[in-house]
Amino acid sequence: MEKGRLEAFSDGVIAIIITIMVLELKVPLKADIASLLLLYPVFLSYILSFIYVGIYWNNHHHTVQVVESVNGTILWANMHLLFWLSLIPFVTAWMGENHFALWPVICYGIVLLMNAIAYAILIFTLIRHHGKNSLLAQAIGKDRKGNISIVIYAVAIAFSWLNSKISIGLYILVACIWFIPDKRIEKKIGIAEPPCKE
Amino acid sequence: MEKGRLEAFSDGVIAIIITIMVLELKVPLKADIASLLLLYPVFLSYILSFIYVGIYWNNHHHTVQVVESVNGTILWANMHLLFWLSLIPFVTAWMGENHFALWPVICYGIVLLMNAIAYAILIFTLIRHHGKNSLLAQAIGKDRKGNISIVIYAVAIAFSWLNSKISIGLYILVACIWFIPDKRIEKKIGIAEPPCKE
Amino acid sequence: MEKGRLEAFSDGVIAIIITIMVLELKVPLKADIASLLLLYPVFLSYILSFIYVGIYWNNHHHTVQVVESVNGTILWANMHLLFWLSLIPFVTAWMGENHFALWPVICYGIVLLMNAIAYAILIFTLIRHHGKNSLLAQAIGKDRKGNISIVIYAVAIAFSWLNSKISIGLYILVACIWFIPDKRIEKKIGIAEPPCKE
Amino acid sequence: MEKGRLEAFSDGVIAIIITIMVLELKVPLKADIASLLLLYPVFLSYILSFIYVGIYWNNHHHTVQVVESVNGTILWANMHLLFWLSLIPFVTAWMGENHFALWPVICYGIVLLMNAIAYAILIFTLIRHHGKNSLLAQAIGKDRKGNISIVIYAVAIAFSWLNSKISIGLYILVACIWFIPDKRIEKKIGIAEPPCKE
Repeated sequence: MEKGRLEAFSDGVIAIIITIMVLELKVPLKADIASLLLLYPVFLSYILSFIYVGIYWNNHHHTVQVVESVNGTILWANMHLLFWLSLIPFVTAWMGENHFALWPVICYGIVLLMNAIAYAILIFTLIRHHGKNSLLAQAIGKDRKGNISIVIYAVAIAFSWLNSKISIGLYILVACIWFIPDKRIEKKIGIAEPPCKE
Repeated sequence: MEKGRLEAFSDGVIAIIITIMVLELKVPLKADIASLLLLYPVFLSYILSFIYVGIYWNNHHHTVQVVESVNGTILWANMHLLFWLSLIPFVTAWMGENHFALWPVICYGIVLLMNAIAYAILIFTLIRHHGKNSLLAQAIGKDRKGNISIVIYAVAIAFSWLNSKISIGLYILVACIWFIPDKRIEKKIGIAEPPCKE
Repeated sequence: MEKGRLEAFSDGVIAIIITIMVLELKVPLKADIASLLLLYPVFLSYILSFIYVGIYWNNHHHTVQVVESVNGTILWANMHLLFWLSLIPFVTAWMGENHFALWPVICYGIVLLMNAIAYAILIFTLIRHHGKNSLLAQAIGKDRKGNISIVIYAVAIAFSWLNSKISIGLYILVACIWFIPDKRIEKKIGIAEPPCKE
Repeated sequence: MEKGRLEAFSDGVIAIIITIMVLELKVPLKADIASLLLLYPVFLSYILSFIYVGIYWNNHHHTVQVVESVNGTILWANMHLLFWLSLIPFVTAWMGENHFALWPVICYGIVLLMNAIAYAILIFTLIRHHGKNSLLAQAIGKDRKGNISIVIYAVAIAFSWLNSKISIGLYILVACIWFIPDKRIEKKIGIAEPPCKE
């Protein structure tokens, strides 16, 4: 099966997720600057989630680029990832509107954790389909960044009982780790084939 | 006529349908876990509908893959399917917010039933356009799964007067039947042409 | 300039327009059938608008298929059409929630009229760009259907002061006229080049 | 890396941004024309923002057309632009609902300014990736229009303390400057390669 529609559908869903988050930025009733500034926690959590969804889109882009074909299991693994991504707007709004209170911060972390796990599952199904010697498998390697993220999320969730600000700091840390797109794949593509201009 | 824009438009509409459902998960006003847990029926119906829309996208993907060209009737049959899919977020929210009460469960079943019928109509127009000996017609065969689903939906709607939980169980049953992507088409493609890498 | 992104962007916008209309179907607070039935005017106007947006997508699909290239003016003519299409959800909701009262019905008609004019402008810019002897110009011909629609919309708006139901009837009439996709273009393509399978 | 998904994702996000703005046009409760006319400032700011987002899509379309490949930095520069575009619906609604009051007008200007800067950054990363002698670099040239816009936005923000109507006038002025698509790129493409029909 071709991967074209998998890309198109994922692009569509991720584009909508990233955009509907802005609907949670409720327009202030009054026109003064104080009303706007009251929104700062909602705005901060919007920025964090925008970057996270951006990271997922970026990694999805990088990973699928070396995908050669897909099967039914991969389609469902991808759908599973999209499900957890779709919950990001919900926890983002809950966290922002409650000034980073305990439970919203925990749930935000759980959703991030589930996204990381869903992404790992997607990569696992892709590698199983392409074989261990495929370009994809070599490009991903041991997926250290993915595993570290899962550990940090778990730590962040555990620490939120002490202080939810530590958790937020750890979520930002993971975002920083991923901010740079996955050089591994860019490198592998560079080795396997000369960069082709469209 | 080419099928490219039919795919693109359907992908767009289905991506939006699956994503706007999450807007019905209204963010709790309070930050405690109890407020969140109160949402469980809304959340459960979101999961069920997410899987259903995912199944439709998956089957659409599989079916359109063996489509060679489209005509005006097919475009409208597809639009008809998208219409019934677009009602899923509405009945999902109604059912979730009312804890799976009688009428919402019935209406949810009716919308699922109409989707199944709309899909059957789409397949009928596709087969008429491609001919009974086409790859598509052979791949679909007698469409047993489609027919069984329609029967189960009808039974589920009838049983909801006794107990709406039975209906929900039957909706989940149909989802399980369809969860696995349509092997018939994957097989037929495998016979007709060797898997081509993009 | 290539037409690929014009198609993609239009597909995206039209897909969102057709889907956000369903957000105006506000979920009833109660779970009984009476609460649902109260929504019938909202539901009827949703169906009418769904068909209208479907017609525009269908015609857009047909027209752009014979387009060979685009320029800046065409992009803006297309954007102008999308602007008027984007107002359909607004007038649909207003009309439905007010049981087809006078002013909402008039405004619905004005938006339909402006859409028809915007479509005529788009076709005009396309023909000017491709030349009067182009496949596109021949396929469109005198655009009788387009002109008749504009007249009927104007009549419907005028008649709404007498009885808004007559106007609704006329809007439905135009929808019926357009329901069948534009055979002119399908025919012309058939003459100009044999149907090619993808 | 190929630019295909960058285009697809940007088209998706921009299509959603332009369309969700219409959700801020809240349907009047009453059916009379007076209730509708009360919405005129919301409507005017919707038109202005629709044109602005249209301009960005148009320029994005023109620029990416001469792009040959992308890298990770470009993907993030593009994501940064999409972030500021995503705030347009928010400031549009705030400005419209408060009849172009001081602070909403200032914030609208700031968002426009940040969009212009984000676009300049995107172009900078594109030129750095393609080289100073590339078709893209030549097509953009000194980007006078971009620089002038940034200056005008800054002036408009400063003047809003005197009279917010002057600012609105200046925002409209910039829209007029950009309304015509970027002839520079169309010209350069015309020189570099004969127009190819798809």
